[in-house]
Amino acid sequence: MDDNSTALWLREHLSAHDSYIHGIRRVLLQTRTRYQDMWLVDTHTFGRALLLDGKWQSCTADEHLYHEPLVHVPALVAALAGQAPRRVLILGGGEGATAREILRWRSVERVVMVDIDGEVVDACRTHLEQMHQGAFDDPRVELVIGDALTYLAETDPVWDLVISDLSEPVEDGPSYPLFTREHFQDVSRVLAPGGVFVLQAGSLSHHELYLHARLARTVSTAFDHVVSYQSAVPSFATPWGYLVARSGAAIDTLPDPAAVDAILAAQLTQPARMMDGATYVSLLQTQGHIRRAIEAETRIYTRDDPPKLPDLARAST
Amino acid sequence: MDDNSTALWLREHLSAHDSYIHGIRRVLLQTRTRYQDMWLVDTHTFGRALLLDGKWQSCTADEHLYHEPLVHVPALVAALAGQAPRRVLILGGGEGATAREILRWRSVERVVMVDIDGEVVDACRTHLEQMHQGAFDDPRVELVIGDALTYLAETDPVWDLVISDLSEPVEDGPSYPLFTREHFQDVSRVLAPGGVFVLQAGSLSHHELYLHARLARTVSTAFDHVVSYQSAVPSFATPWGYLVARSGAAIDTLPDPAAVDAILAAQLTQPARMMDGATYVSLLQTQGHIRRAIEAETRIYTRDDPPKLPDLARAST
Amino acid sequence: MDDNSTALWLREHLSAHDSYIHGIRRVLLQTRTRYQDMWLVDTHTFGRALLLDGKWQSCTADEHLYHEPLVHVPALVAALAGQAPRRVLILGGGEGATAREILRWRSVERVVMVDIDGEVVDACRTHLEQMHQGAFDDPRVELVIGDALTYLAETDPVWDLVISDLSEPVEDGPSYPLFTREHFQDVSRVLAPGGVFVLQAGSLSHHELYLHARLARTVSTAFDHVVSYQSAVPSFATPWGYLVARSGAAIDTLPDPAAVDAILAAQLTQPARMMDGATYVSLLQTQGHIRRAIEAETRIYTRDDPPKLPDLARAST
Amino acid sequence: MDDNSTALWLREHLSAHDSYIHGIRRVLLQTRTRYQDMWLVDTHTFGRALLLDGKWQSCTADEHLYHEPLVHVPALVAALAGQAPRRVLILGGGEGATAREILRWRSVERVVMVDIDGEVVDACRTHLEQMHQGAFDDPRVELVIGDALTYLAETDPVWDLVISDLSEPVEDGPSYPLFTREHFQDVSRVLAPGGVFVLQAGSLSHHELYLHARLARTVSTAFDHVVSYQSAVPSFATPWGYLVARSGAAIDTLPDPAAVDAILAAQLTQPARMMDGATYVSLLQTQGHIRRAIEAETRIYTRDDPPKLPDLARAST
Repeated sequence: MDDNSTALWLREHLSAHDSYIHGIRRVLLQTRTRYQDMWLVDTHTFGRALLLDGKWQSCTADEHLYHEPLVHVPALVAALAGQAPRRVLILGGGEGATAREILRWRSVERVVMVDIDGEVVDACRTHLEQMHQGAFDDPRVELVIGDALTYLAETDPVWDLVISDLSEPVEDGPSYPLFTREHFQDVSRVLAPGGVFVLQAGSLSHHELYLHARLARTVSTAFDHVVSYQSAVPSFATPWGYLVARSGAAIDTLPDPAAVDAILAAQLTQPARMMDGATYVSLLQTQGHIRRAIEAETRIYTRDDPPKLPDLARAST
Repeated sequence: MDDNSTALWLREHLSAHDSYIHGIRRVLLQTRTRYQDMWLVDTHTFGRALLLDGKWQSCTADEHLYHEPLVHVPALVAALAGQAPRRVLILGGGEGATAREILRWRSVERVVMVDIDGEVVDACRTHLEQMHQGAFDDPRVELVIGDALTYLAETDPVWDLVISDLSEPVEDGPSYPLFTREHFQDVSRVLAPGGVFVLQAGSLSHHELYLHARLARTVSTAFDHVVSYQSAVPSFATPWGYLVARSGAAIDTLPDPAAVDAILAAQLTQPARMMDGATYVSLLQTQGHIRRAIEAETRIYTRDDPPKLPDLARAST
Repeated sequence: MDDNSTALWLREHLSAHDSYIHGIRRVLLQTRTRYQDMWLVDTHTFGRALLLDGKWQSCTADEHLYHEPLVHVPALVAALAGQAPRRVLILGGGEGATAREILRWRSVERVVMVDIDGEVVDACRTHLEQMHQGAFDDPRVELVIGDALTYLAETDPVWDLVISDLSEPVEDGPSYPLFTREHFQDVSRVLAPGGVFVLQAGSLSHHELYLHARLARTVSTAFDHVVSYQSAVPSFATPWGYLVARSGAAIDTLPDPAAVDAILAAQLTQPARMMDGATYVSLLQTQGHIRRAIEAETRIYTRDDPPKLPDLARAST
Repeated sequence: MDDNSTALWLREHLSAHDSYIHGIRRVLLQTRTRYQDMWLVDTHTFGRALLLDGKWQSCTADEHLYHEPLVHVPALVAALAGQAPRRVLILGGGEGATAREILRWRSVERVVMVDIDGEVVDACRTHLEQMHQGAFDDPRVELVIGDALTYLAETDPVWDLVISDLSEPVEDGPSYPLFTREHFQDVSRVLAPGGVFVLQAGSLSHHELYLHARLARTVSTAFDHVVSYQSAVPSFATPWGYLVARSGAAIDTLPDPAAVDAILAAQLTQPARMMDGATYVSLLQTQGHIRRAIEAETRIYTRDDPPKLPDLARAST
């Protein structure tokens, strides 16, 4: 059956002229939620994958290469400053894998995950157990189905770590207001002293690098220190960028790897698959072409001038 | 949702180097039966489609252009000779659309449909009501889940019409023995005097026409008269060939269209969408390039040397 | 090399959701003329093919199934009325295959071919010798590089046969004004008494049949008799429609095939590959679903309300 | 023209079930050399690209992300040990970009580039000036068209740096013997004392990581120290692995970035686009999942048991 099944293909538009196509073993779920199209597919090479509005979110085969950098880098930034995270706020994160990773930290006492789309969360709970690994049932976790903007407006500045794990800022999509100066200022306001903010911050391919650079500039308007880092997630095709930010003390981008390993050994209830001291240093040393692109960028995103990526899946067929 | 859904594609291999790809709205069913892979998909352009082992069988948007020629041509051949069909044997025909069409003939008293794959028939009953339109519930119909070869070996020569609506003779597939001289002789044996045989007989595209030509030659070894005709079914991409055969009196390929219309008016409980007198004449006048290809062909298919099309869906990815 | 070469694909958009893709052996020519994009490609299955603005025009493997019906049907309509064509005007026809076919008629004394794009004609002369077979060098042929509308406005009513072999009426393309009532009236005016007009008239697939039906209605506003016919050209994927028209005496759609064969034997300097008496009858007996679609259509195309197909190649990627 | 041109697609098979497809503006060259199929294409997103036997080699848009790590990492390994490279041997490297990068080092006195396929080198000289930037005309460069194995067998141990920039070890391809223990021992023999070896060492995607891990193990049989590093080259889709090796003194994987920057400032005639001190540290700190995969691997490649990747372009269509 496997061979014949390759007659069914998923095509992800990476640009107007480039696509990544995957043979599909089975379509597990295909539905329209209140907010977006949601698919869960079983691929031949990459395991099970979640797609929202035609955009690949993550897959079981290599999601750790996306989620471990997203979670352990900011947690280590905090811990290296002597302040391992206790209260963590996740914006988005429907698959539950972001929650799963942060729950591995012994320091963590409370995780609030705010996702606008309860149907996505429910589907992931059912079909992606390999991703969330029961995170939703951890007593430290509170799941809020609602608008991240509203939650941020009402919460107190008690968060040691805010993780923005949102879908891309597509035009007419739900996420783009959360990629603006005003939003980053809101995040800054709800952080506890010494708190750390991280966001997934777009593709680093040459034709899309401007978005990451502008986001870096924009986050810099709300935080004293911002570091760009990347992870190469094969199923994304394109290298992926993140931004970690903090005000006050600088971010230690070149600690002794052994010190990082010691923190992880003390904190993690289960070893990470990717992250360790060498990996932290590898990630936090921003590569030259990325650093130069950020330095050269002058534009920032604001509520009145937000990022609006073209919706490739809708524009093309 | 429609636009985004086009990220999911069905690719049908038409040759090693050519494919027809269709945007999919939804996968309705994807399973492995005892005999083959079965998919039911909802396409954007062509309605619902059935695929077996990766090969497109028929779709709701244009199945009448396939089924009406398959059924009404041989029925008219019989009726024009004064012998409208009463007892009809269908080999294959899982969707139920072949049965649906022949049941429209008032002359028909009994239809036996022999399909090897009960799971396919069940799925079509559930998901393709638009195709069978209740044919399976008609009291004149008997559904036999079993091997057509076995049924033919055991049945008496009582059939006015035998319709071979089988999947293509793919190597390692279940159908190829039913495209041989020995099988056509078996069919000839179970026909009542004056009985008519029809079979779907492959693509007529230049690179595949040899199969149709050899089948025409092979059917000629078992019947006195054989006529090749074709229908252009858009969802097949390639024009499709049929062979209608009879022993004894010749086949009337150029009747007065009005005489055909009169038969149809008297017989059909519901007007056909495609078939009428002009259409019958159009079909039965075999086009020149097809007739010449058949005349030039010398090879026939036998039990020891059957047709074995490459399984493109399996060979390629 | 052949196998590896299949990494290069040509994708023809047949609708917003359906594409026909072909493995390419070699790109022979890829250029922008004054009017359109022109490609000549060598495919694995279909020989050499010409594409204009991303639309497949014809290919060496099955162009005879397109050009023979286009040319010999109207020539036979004229000859069956005792008036084999002497002066022939071709609108479009860049490949030279339309000219090639009509030049086979011994009755033909003069052929004028008016094509707007001299670069396309030059490229076809160089790369598609298999198509034109020297037609451009026949002393009876005059090639006019220019606007068909202008030529029609200035020519006298001397033409026995006008063949409209134009690219499809795509929005913003050069052809759509030549698919309107006013244009068909212009054509009618330049025909000699008893003259015949034929045009390629679009896909007959269910989702595009409206165009053919409206063209049939529109041609009917300028001619007494119009007959729709079709040819199944495999490389087009979709069955293709034509309209043949004449004023005065009716079109003989059901002659004795032997009478047609006799005309062809007397007239053609070289036998046709497809066309003969049976084929003529097969084509001229319009199939039921097409006839009914035309009967149900009420809209016509005018200069103020012309056909404007979406430019799929431009809209999609 | 650009939009329509996207009807022409290049499909690179990344696995039996996954492909990366790119809209092509123009095919610049498509030929069969004595050794392989060679294409040069102009893409919409990634500039000009070279493909050999259907495999993407590099493209103008992001080749620096492939070539700078390949060249500057081993050169820095040598320079950090006080021994900036003077004599450099390149195995493969047809585009000329590897030579271009090493020629930027002031320490370099002589570069020999041994490529088996002179037709590829000639085509790159003509069509990829943006890549080689005149490297072939530098008086320090000697181009040898011939077999790397033969050259290695005959050269003296005078090389400070050997760079293996070969196409992947595909079954039946020309490169696979150069990915074996015996070959790495040959390389070790021709290095001057303190000399450094680097090789491009395959995709790091989860389903292909075994190849990189086995190559790391295999190189370890011939060198005292081996470090795995990666670069995320967007046009490759999959993160790319390299191995840098030396015998004797260990490789300094965590120098002060400023010390690296000082070396580059002194050595390079032109600043690098990607490489600097931070980037060197980022690359040389092997990420955890890669290091663990190498540690877990036990198999090595030998002349009798070489790597043989499936030829996806040939196997699939």
